Amino acid sequence: MSLSKKPYKGTRDFFPKDKRALDYIFSVMRKTAFEFGYESYDGPLLEEVDLYRAKSGEELINDQIYNFLDRGNREVAIRPEMTPTVARMVALIHREEAKPIRWFSIPNLMRYEKPQKGRLREHWQFNCDIFGAPEGHGELEILTLVIKLLKNFGANETQFEILINDRRVVDYIIKEKMNLDEERSYKLYKIIDKSKKVSPEALEKMVDELNLDQDAKNVFNKYLAVSSFGDMLHLLKSEGAPQERIEDLVSFSEKLDKLELIKYFRYDPTIVRGLDYYTGMVFEVYDKHPDNRRAISGGGSYSDLLKIFNEAPMPGVGFGLGDVTLKDFLEIHKLLPNFETPENDIFITYQTEKAEIEAIKLANSLREKGLRVVIHFGELKFKKIFGLAEKKGAQWVALMGEDEFNQQKVQIKNLSTRDQKEFSLSDIDSIYSNLK
Amino acid sequence: MSLSKKPYKGTRDFFPKDKRALDYIFSVMRKTAFEFGYESYDGPLLEEVDLYRAKSGEELINDQIYNFLDRGNREVAIRPEMTPTVARMVALIHREEAKPIRWFSIPNLMRYEKPQKGRLREHWQFNCDIFGAPEGHGELEILTLVIKLLKNFGANETQFEILINDRRVVDYIIKEKMNLDEERSYKLYKIIDKSKKVSPEALEKMVDELNLDQDAKNVFNKYLAVSSFGDMLHLLKSEGAPQERIEDLVSFSEKLDKLELIKYFRYDPTIVRGLDYYTGMVFEVYDKHPDNRRAISGGGSYSDLLKIFNEAPMPGVGFGLGDVTLKDFLEIHKLLPNFETPENDIFITYQTEKAEIEAIKLANSLREKGLRVVIHFGELKFKKIFGLAEKKGAQWVALMGEDEFNQQKVQIKNLSTRDQKEFSLSDIDSIYSNLK
Repeated sequence: MSLSKKPYKGTRDFFPKDKRALDYIFSVMRKTAFEFGYESYDGPLLEEVDLYRAKSGEELINDQIYNFLDRGNREVAIRPEMTPTVARMVALIHREEAKPIRWFSIPNLMRYEKPQKGRLREHWQFNCDIFGAPEGHGELEILTLVIKLLKNFGANETQFEILINDRRVVDYIIKEKMNLDEERSYKLYKIIDKSKKVSPEALEKMVDELNLDQDAKNVFNKYLAVSSFGDMLHLLKSEGAPQERIEDLVSFSEKLDKLELIKYFRYDPTIVRGLDYYTGMVFEVYDKHPDNRRAISGGGSYSDLLKIFNEAPMPGVGFGLGDVTLKDFLEIHKLLPNFETPENDIFITYQTEKAEIEAIKLANSLREKGLRVVIHFGELKFKKIFGLAEKKGAQWVALMGEDEFNQQKVQIKNLSTRDQKEFSLSDIDSIYSNLK
Repeated sequence: MSLSKKPYKGTRDFFPKDKRALDYIFSVMRKTAFEFGYESYDGPLLEEVDLYRAKSGEELINDQIYNFLDRGNREVAIRPEMTPTVARMVALIHREEAKPIRWFSIPNLMRYEKPQKGRLREHWQFNCDIFGAPEGHGELEILTLVIKLLKNFGANETQFEILINDRRVVDYIIKEKMNLDEERSYKLYKIIDKSKKVSPEALEKMVDELNLDQDAKNVFNKYLAVSSFGDMLHLLKSEGAPQERIEDLVSFSEKLDKLELIKYFRYDPTIVRGLDYYTGMVFEVYDKHPDNRRAISGGGSYSDLLKIFNEAPMPGVGFGLGDVTLKDFLEIHKLLPNFETPENDIFITYQTEKAEIEAIKLANSLREKGLRVVIHFGELKFKKIFGLAEKKGAQWVALMGEDEFNQQKVQIKNLSTRDQKEFSLSDIDSIYSNLK
């Protein structure tokens, strides 16, 4: 019996051209994070399950986590998300650090999902978090960063939008105005979270099951009808919301306006985020392409992440953005460069076995200069050389035939201009200058 | 009860300064691989256990692997090494690829080990493999690459050496000259593999248990006494080895000599490599530092890796090098740069709340130019600015007090020269030119 050559269900093999695309994606993520002064961190692949039990939503623990007992009977899980890990790490060191703490990571994560478009079992996720920033500042910076990230990929406001909401507003509406207790509030949160994915009839049915009174229904319908900062402001005023909620909203939208960022945003009351730890602003970045209407990133503010470690509350704001949905977004908008061939400087060939050692020496000398050098082992016929060199993405080809070997020379050909020059093998500096 | 803040046993938290060191290590690995025209790939975090059962050594499967049943009753494992995955991937595509195939990866791997110096449960491993190169060429290139890697970290031949051997030579000695059957050969291989880690007495005891006859013992002792290419050549000749083995050895050491690489090598008959798939050359890179005499990398040639997939044999040569042992090597030889602070271009501050939006605008404009910009939120007193800026690794500081804000100006101070200049906030190009 022979073994399967396929990767495990829901995971991917990254052959070189796939990996070049992934590395490009990582490089833009890193560049953007560094532009905002975020520092890279990483954590373990495995954490004890208690950490997720304390921090993530129910669904994640029950159905989606890769958990098992290790050989020492510890209950562990492959990380399904990074936030619990970063909370643990910040809890360890925050006393010694100047605030705010700005961190990012790009871990591989696993969730036990039914593989489908945009959703796999293993993916990479760009995570950015700011801890300990004054109220409102962290939110603004994180949103600016996520916009800059997509701009650094070449995207603009016709291609994506940020749907934004605030848990404190939702809490005010649900708990204060609709008068729901904790249990029914929690259920309504879950219903709102799912509302985009179901039909209006299915939504109505779910809401009906909560047995809301007519006043509560009315408020809820007004809430769901909000579709702009202006609408929300109007609702908060007409429902007599505390001055703080109203001022926050005004000040926040004014800042977005002054920073010329308002064009990226739309107020959306159905954005609440599934995970339980958000306490303030919540947002999702949506693809505007009609064939790919889905979230490519989500995040928000949380104030209690460190509580499970018996640490004082510290405000945090963060977001996650996965490589699978991002790649779908970049592809549908034709923003992903072509990674078919690698990038190399020179393809070294010899047409006589005698020249082998000279060819390797030349290769090693050019590597000392930092060039990317591919050598072809064994005699290579002239007519095959250029096709192979192009497949290797080489800019130049070195040729050593019988004559060149006898004279200790090498021919160097530029593959785009087709110019060819002869050099003495011992004159590495001239060869190198010619290649730049 | 509060949760533990510690990472799972045998794994590491990478706080920013640790992650900068790790990223530096990765960047040198990538640079070196690219210098040799190797292309980056990656595979899944989980593979089905059958893949490891077919390919890795017994010990790995029985004691060291993180395996479990997934929710669909598939027996899976977190990858403990990359070679089985790369074999699977090459088996999938080798028919369409020009040879040789040159690939590298830097996966995170997990083994269930007792954590100790140089050995953790989770580590990263640089893997380079060349498939389908003509006999001898792949070996030479892989060895050249591993030497260049350590040179790119600043190391030299006084700090590391490559201990080399050949499984075909070991096979000839054990099977042909000592006349051991498969079972006893396998046991002797395992004994040789452990010989460096035990006392001479313990070694003798293990060998005694094989009940060798006197002739076999004599050959084995002569074999163990080899300590140079010359010794091995002498032994092969005196034991009547096939001409092919002798010529290979001569030609190989001559090439190392011509390429000025021989100084890095020492013939070592105890190097056989624990994993079962090697069939030709085997090597380990050893730290020469008296306080850290251990292998930091190992590899070799294999010809049958694709057999488990019912594919024709294809020669391969590869090596692995883990980040934990490499970091120990770099640290003991003082080759690791200081990563205490991040690298940023400018630290933007304001001394009056009114300037907040102007400060963020300036930050965003400089980010458009690709600069790394850290902004301090909230008024910052003058005497605290420079200490904070230095902690952030900034080269420059921007200051906006009441006066500057009123005139729409900004002071830019160079932290090393202490020069300070005033700019108009609207003149981003001049500010940017000044920062370069």
